[in-house]
Order: sequence, then C-alpha cells, then structure tokens
Amino acid sequence: MMKKETGAIEKLDKITTIAMKRGFFWPTAEIYGGKAGFYSYGHLGKALKQKFEHLWRLHFLEENCYEIEGSCILPEPVFIASGHLENFNDPLIECKTCHFRFRADQFLEDNNIKTENMSIDDMTKIIAEKQLKCPKCGSWHLGEAKWFNMMFPIALGAAGVKDTAYLTPETAQASYLSFKREFEATRKQLPLGIAIISKAFRNEISPRQLLTRQREFTQAELQMFFDKDEINNLEDRKWKDISKYNLILLPQKAKAITETTCEEANKKLKIPKFYLYYMALTQKFYLDKLQVPKKSFRFRELSEKERAFYNKIHWDMELELDTLGGFREMGGIHYRTDHDLLGHEKHSKENLHIFFNNKSFIPHVIEVSLGVDRDVWAFLDLFYKEEKERTLFTFPKTLAPVDVAIFPLVSKEKMPDKALDIYSMLKDDFSCFYDETDSIGRRYRRQDEIGTPYCITVDGQTMKDNTVTIRARDSMKQVRVKIEKLKEELRK
Amino acid sequence: MMKKETGAIEKLDKITTIAMKRGFFWPTAEIYGGKAGFYSYGHLGKALKQKFEHLWRLHFLEENCYEIEGSCILPEPVFIASGHLENFNDPLIECKTCHFRFRADQFLEDNNIKTENMSIDDMTKIIAEKQLKCPKCGSWHLGEAKWFNMMFPIALGAAGVKDTAYLTPETAQASYLSFKREFEATRKQLPLGIAIISKAFRNEISPRQLLTRQREFTQAELQMFFDKDEINNLEDRKWKDISKYNLILLPQKAKAITETTCEEANKKLKIPKFYLYYMALTQKFYLDKLQVPKKSFRFRELSEKERAFYNKIHWDMELELDTLGGFREMGGIHYRTDHDLLGHEKHSKENLHIFFNNKSFIPHVIEVSLGVDRDVWAFLDLFYKEEKERTLFTFPKTLAPVDVAIFPLVSKEKMPDKALDIYSMLKDDFSCFYDETDSIGRRYRRQDEIGTPYCITVDGQTMKDNTVTIRARDSMKQVRVKIEKLKEELRK
Repeated sequence: MMKKETGAIEKLDKITTIAMKRGFFWPTAEIYGGKAGFYSYGHLGKALKQKFEHLWRLHFLEENCYEIEGSCILPEPVFIASGHLENFNDPLIECKTCHFRFRADQFLEDNNIKTENMSIDDMTKIIAEKQLKCPKCGSWHLGEAKWFNMMFPIALGAAGVKDTAYLTPETAQASYLSFKREFEATRKQLPLGIAIISKAFRNEISPRQLLTRQREFTQAELQMFFDKDEINNLEDRKWKDISKYNLILLPQKAKAITETTCEEANKKLKIPKFYLYYMALTQKFYLDKLQVPKKSFRFRELSEKERAFYNKIHWDMELELDTLGGFREMGGIHYRTDHDLLGHEKHSKENLHIFFNNKSFIPHVIEVSLGVDRDVWAFLDLFYKEEKERTLFTFPKTLAPVDVAIFPLVSKEKMPDKALDIYSMLKDDFSCFYDETDSIGRRYRRQDEIGTPYCITVDGQTMKDNTVTIRARDSMKQVRVKIEKLKEELRK
Repeated sequence: MMKKETGAIEKLDKITTIAMKRGFFWPTAEIYGGKAGFYSYGHLGKALKQKFEHLWRLHFLEENCYEIEGSCILPEPVFIASGHLENFNDPLIECKTCHFRFRADQFLEDNNIKTENMSIDDMTKIIAEKQLKCPKCGSWHLGEAKWFNMMFPIALGAAGVKDTAYLTPETAQASYLSFKREFEATRKQLPLGIAIISKAFRNEISPRQLLTRQREFTQAELQMFFDKDEINNLEDRKWKDISKYNLILLPQKAKAITETTCEEANKKLKIPKFYLYYMALTQKFYLDKLQVPKKSFRFRELSEKERAFYNKIHWDMELELDTLGGFREMGGIHYRTDHDLLGHEKHSKENLHIFFNNKSFIPHVIEVSLGVDRDVWAFLDLFYKEEKERTLFTFPKTLAPVDVAIFPLVSKEKMPDKALDIYSMLKDDFSCFYDETDSIGRRYRRQDEIGTPYCITVDGQTMKDNTVTIRARDSMKQVRVKIEKLKEELRK
C-alpha cells in the first residue's frame, strides 16, 4: 500500500464520515464490530450503484449482446477446468511465534519494497534479508511465503457425501458455462456478447481500502465471443467510429501517458482492432457517460508476469484517486483467447465447438471487466468538493442517488400536503426524497452533501399560483416554475 | 409433493423445453451434469426477472421506504442472535444400509402421508410403522429423523484462525443489521421500510421443482419497522383506500376461500390494520400490476405449528399453478414483532432502541417476503397458452422479456439496414430483438413463443414511404405506422 499524503487521508476520512452518516455505505454487521472485507450499501450507495449499473447496461450491451444470470455457487469441476483451483492463489506468510497469517506481497509493500513481478521465493528471501518483523507480535521468526487459494469452498447437501463447490471468484465462468445455450438461443452469430452483473467472492487474506478490495464484491463483466481470424477485422462503421479516437495509454515500456489514436495503436502497438473497439468503448463510458476528468483516466498495459497466464493482451483501466494515492485498477480488458471454453470442453467432454463462418471452432473471448464497488468509491472520491460554506458531490445528473428533493418551506399552511402531492407525482419517474425538518438552508446543504442536483420548494406563493422553486446544486440558483411543467423542466 | 395430473406434467415438460431452448433458464453448469438446486437464467429469463423486480420496486417502495444492499456472507453472531443457528433446520433421515440421506417430510409426502404439523419424533415413528424403504437401495434399515441445519458455513481468512460466517438464508437479517443506520440517515420517522432484493442460500437436502425450491435463490423482501402501539392505527387516507377492498382469504379454520373486505378482516378476524395494508398492497400487486387471474390467487393463514416461532401473524401468498399441482407458496407476510432487533441488541450489546412518538423503544417489524424465482416460474405457468397453430406466453406488456422484435421482410434491398436503424432508435427505451433469418411467419411464431407483444416489419413499402407494420401478439393483427411515430405508438 502506497504512503498517502496527509491531505489524502483527511479526504478519505471526510468522505467515509459522510458516507456512513448519510447512507452510502458502512461495514457489514457493524453492530457486531464488522468483518474485514465486507461492506453494506445504505439507500444512497445502493441508488448510486444501481444508476452506474443501468448506465453500464445501456452503454455496453450493443446488438447481439445479452445479459444473463448465473449461480454464485459453482461445482468443483468448473474451477478445475478454469485453472482457479490450481492457480488462484495469494502469497501467505505465517508468523512462527504468534501464528498470525498475512499477505507476503502487501507486507513487503508496507515496508516500502516493490513486489511487482516478484516471485514467491524472492519474497521469502527478501523478508529474511531485511529482517522484517511480524506486524502483530514483532517476532523475526517468520515462515516461508506459500500460496493460499482464494476461493471459498462450500459443502453441498447433507454431510455424508463429499460434494464440494465454490463461491465463484469472477462472474466470467457463468458466462462460459452458458455460452453454447445462449449461442443457440439467440442469433447463432458472432460476435456474441454475454454480460453478467453479479456478486463474486474472494477469500482475501487481508482485505483493505474500504470498498476497493472486498471479500464479497460486485463485478460488471462482458464476455465478447468472436472468431479469432476476425480479431483485426472490425465492421467498417465501427472502425470509422474509433479510428481517429485518442486512447489514453501507458504502454509497458513507456515512461509517460500518451494519447494515441486507435489507428496508431493498431499499427504501432499491434493492438488488434476488435480489442481496440472495447478500449474505446470503455474510455468513452468513463469520459462521456460518467464525466470522469480526462486527466484521471488511463489504460495501463500489464507485463507478462503481472497478467494471468491465459491473458494474451491485458490493459487495466485505471483511475487516479487522491484517497488511494494515485492511479488504481478499476477494471481491465482481457484477451482470454479460448482458454476457458477449451478447458471446459476438455473437462466436461461436451462439444463446445460452434459452426460459423463455414468452419467449426471454439470462439475466442475478450472480456471487459469492471469492479462496481471500486467505481462507486471512485465517484465519491472524484466528485467530492469543498466550498467555503458547503461540501458537495458534483455527481453527473445520471449518477446522483437522489434526483430531486422536495421540501415544504414550513410545516404548516398545507405546504407539506402540497409537497407530498408533488412527491407522488414525480416518484415513478425520478428518485425523490421528501424532507420537512430544519430550516430550508440546512435542507439545501444536506442535499448538496449527498449530491442531489435539484431541490423543489413549496412556499407561500405556491399556495396562490401553483408554482414552486427549483434550486440547482452547482449554481445554487433558483427558478420558479408551474407545478404542471415540473416533469418537463426536470427532464431538461 | 402432490401427485400431478398427466396434463400438468406434460405442461411442465413443454414449458421447460421452451425455457431451455429459447433462453429462459437451464441447470447451472449443465455441461458438467448440473447440480440439484441450481439454475441459471438465460437472457429471456433474466429480462423477465428484472422486469418483475422493477415492478416490485415501483409498487412496494412507497414514501419513507428505501432499498439497501447487504452482504450475502454474514458473521456467525448474527445467526446466533436471529435463532437460525439453533432453529433453521430440516428433518433428515439416513439409510443405515447405503448411507443415502434425504428429507424425512418429503419422503413421507411422497408416500402419501401428510406431514403438516408433524413432529420429528412422529416422523421417525410413522416411517418405522409403515415400514417405508430407502428410496435408493430399498433397505428397511432407516435411522431416526434428525434436524439438519440448512445454512452454508464459510471459513473466513487464512485457515489458522477459526472465523466462521454463513451465507445468509434470508435477506431480512441484512436489513435488521442496518436498521439503526438507515433510521438515522433518513427521516428518523416510523413507519420506515427497508427493502432488499438479493440472493439467499439454503442447503436444501433434496431440492426440487425446478426454480421453486433452489439452494441459491432470489428474494424480494420489504421490512416495515413501526411502533407496535400503532399497529391498528393506519393513516386515514390509506385506510380509506383499502377498507372496502376484498381480500381473498383462506383462514386457518375455514374450508373454502372467502372474499373479505379489509374492514371485516379487521373486525372479525382481528387482523390489525397495518398488517392488512400490506396484504392489500400485495394482492393489488398480483392482480393489477402482474395481471394474475383472480381465481389463481389466495392468502392462506398458517397454523401455529407451521409458522416460525417468532411470527405472530403469518399468511402465505399462494398462486395456483397447474405445473405444481395446486396452490403453492410464492411469499408471505410475517409479523416478526421485535424478535430480530431484540436478539441483535442482546447479542451485539448495541442499543437498538430509537426515540420516537415521545418514547424509547425497539420497533416491531412486518415483513413482506416474495420469492423472485418462484414468481418467474409462476408467470411461465400462468401465461402459457396453446392455440391451434401456435404456443405463446400471454405475459402482460410490463413483464414480457422482449418488448418488440424488429424484422426486415427479406434480407436484401437494404431492408436489414433500415431495420437495424429502427433497432438503434428504439433500443434505449425498449428491450428489442433483431432477427432476419427464416420466413416472416416463422419469425412471428418464434416471438409468440417467448411472449413478445409486438413485432415490427420493414417491407417493400417501408423503402417507399417510411412506414412499417406493427403486429400484435394476442390479436395477430397488423397496423401500419410511420417510423417517426413508432415510439409513441409503442408507448400506447
């Protein structure tokens, strides 16, 4: 974990305080002291998450892409075939004195030693050389770093018979298991996209950093199945769309971020067009739909050692977050080739070849994977703003958990009834919040603090001419509109 | 399990065949032979499920009700407090000869012996008396019925330290754990509703009946927290809304279903008004929003032995389904009193009292719980229809997985391009499906078979005057409309 500047820690604390108090998130089972790596969303966090998921669906599910739902619990053979049972491990160290167990790589990073690309034997060696001490009891007597499998095993059925399954560590496997069925049930065409937004589970040894490394988390993943011979043949209209589009890239050997058109990236960096299409789609999602500042976004190419053995091309999508001390992975685009389907064909003995383009083959896969909880945290970080007399989240309107707050100026003269009528009128089309306590100024501040773009106030004049004020979050300016024009006005 | 008529089994087979072929659902990890109690949704099933969830949110989340999201994995103390660790059990029998384990109550029902209200000792006794044989090996040598806990345990962290958690068997606990936070973060008012739509997990000994009794399933649950002194004081406008509304009831001692107004149910059956409000809201959801036939709906009152020990009032919401041989539980309304919050206060030692109505107390809870997968199955059953020349699902328009299919009459003369333009124009507002293979007649039949309300066809005339035909599923009639009027026309 990188050292964070004091300002960053302060910002993290401030955001977390607002988040817990106002209903964005809090530790799961907090009344029992919580459990590392588990968080729950309050109503505001849930709304923000749902809005992100909705935008993701609208943006990524283009023609011949379909959302499905798999099980979180999958039987053991799935993970033998995928390689997770053998390879999905973290390096673990045990203190020989107090038996505390912790992650070797994080331990080294905490001691300011870079572990990128480091082998497990080197970790053991360096820990011994540097005479690092157990973070719990202070003993020098530490064991060797060993691999620890990160899946949670599940015993199915009544104990008698051994029937092991696992909580899925990624949504992707469920898509591969359903691929043949979906191919048959849809247009029998490639490219075919199968999308899943779902929980995934990883038994992290030492979960950290709030929402960004949890044991239970939500992924939004799109698996694009295609004919590998077509990887550099993008449809004309799609290529035309992106060929001049500037990607923000940090290639493996580069020292700085460069803006590179898809055309150049294809020619010079040899990134195939079909892969580039999903890089461009992802970048447009962040910059255009989510309004993330351009300077906070980049793709970083992973080295061969960093990426999973089945990933032939792997760029992470990273956002620069003050609270996490720099650019951090929010997701990645993984060219997984035919690794997974091939493994499943071999282990299940089911034929997973399809017939398409006049040949029989197993499709290749490009996966676009995003961590939903990480994104939620990123929005809290990126859109947090302090002004002289208020703090606010400047969420884009499409992301704000509450679209519009509705207030009676005072709790008398039938203003609350009128305000509740407006609430009922708007509630099916907008996410609304009604509030009648405290002064109007404090109510505005409370809505600023959670990023509500608009506040509607019912006042004395409302009772005479059926008009209300709409107050905008960013400018704090008010306009007066007829109640019957409210929906129309808010849609603008 | 009730004996099913041959017609019912045929219907079940037909629906299942369509469901698997077209993309509603299939067994999870089917290529590995599947696992009892686990199903995955294909794109049509997922869309149907999402639409149900959307309607549920719109209908049940009234003012001061909020959706949150909890963790699926919860630490052990939660289930000590809730009583699940001690009481959430199924009766298990082991064959002493072949060691096969199975559910005692289901085993008796399969042998035509009613087990409602039967104690575990009586199960053992009757199995011995009737000399029932092991369903697997045929041996008479069966063990005693014993309780088997239905939660899946999870070991957190690296093996060394024992840190047990469980997959949650109901969404409700996550709402109770977050209650105090949500109360503080919202309006500090009762009644307060906390809603969760989430996966829940139960280690069923013998899962059955497709989607209706799974080991991993989705619940939509609303917990209404209220002041118990107010249980019979409903707001005037709400009572006016429901007092003359006829509930369809099968009370404990009644022999037949009766229609009873809420007023009568309050006076004669002594059901409190606040509970009646959620019965009425639930019935309206099924009859009005989901268009379930009235004759297929009822509330059944559970006997004291049938209901959980903490439920003071418990009516199940049941639907009559051909494929399941009669009325079956889809959900229930549970007056859980202060059982859960009181348990959590006691075990966590956190003060869960609130101050409201000028007193300090722990709120009571009425839970409205629905099984989402059961509902999805119910729609497939209830809306399945066979006609002379086609089979179809007559889903209400708000539930149909695909809103509109778009076809070029033939795959030439630029009709596909035109049809794809229409697809792009409509895709953000409607769920669309594009298809250009086979004759137009077969394409219509395929859409009927999955319940698509409308098909749009681009034909020769389209290329001349920019009009297309819209064909309605139920009447099979076509009208011709201008492309620019399509959205408007479909919204009607």
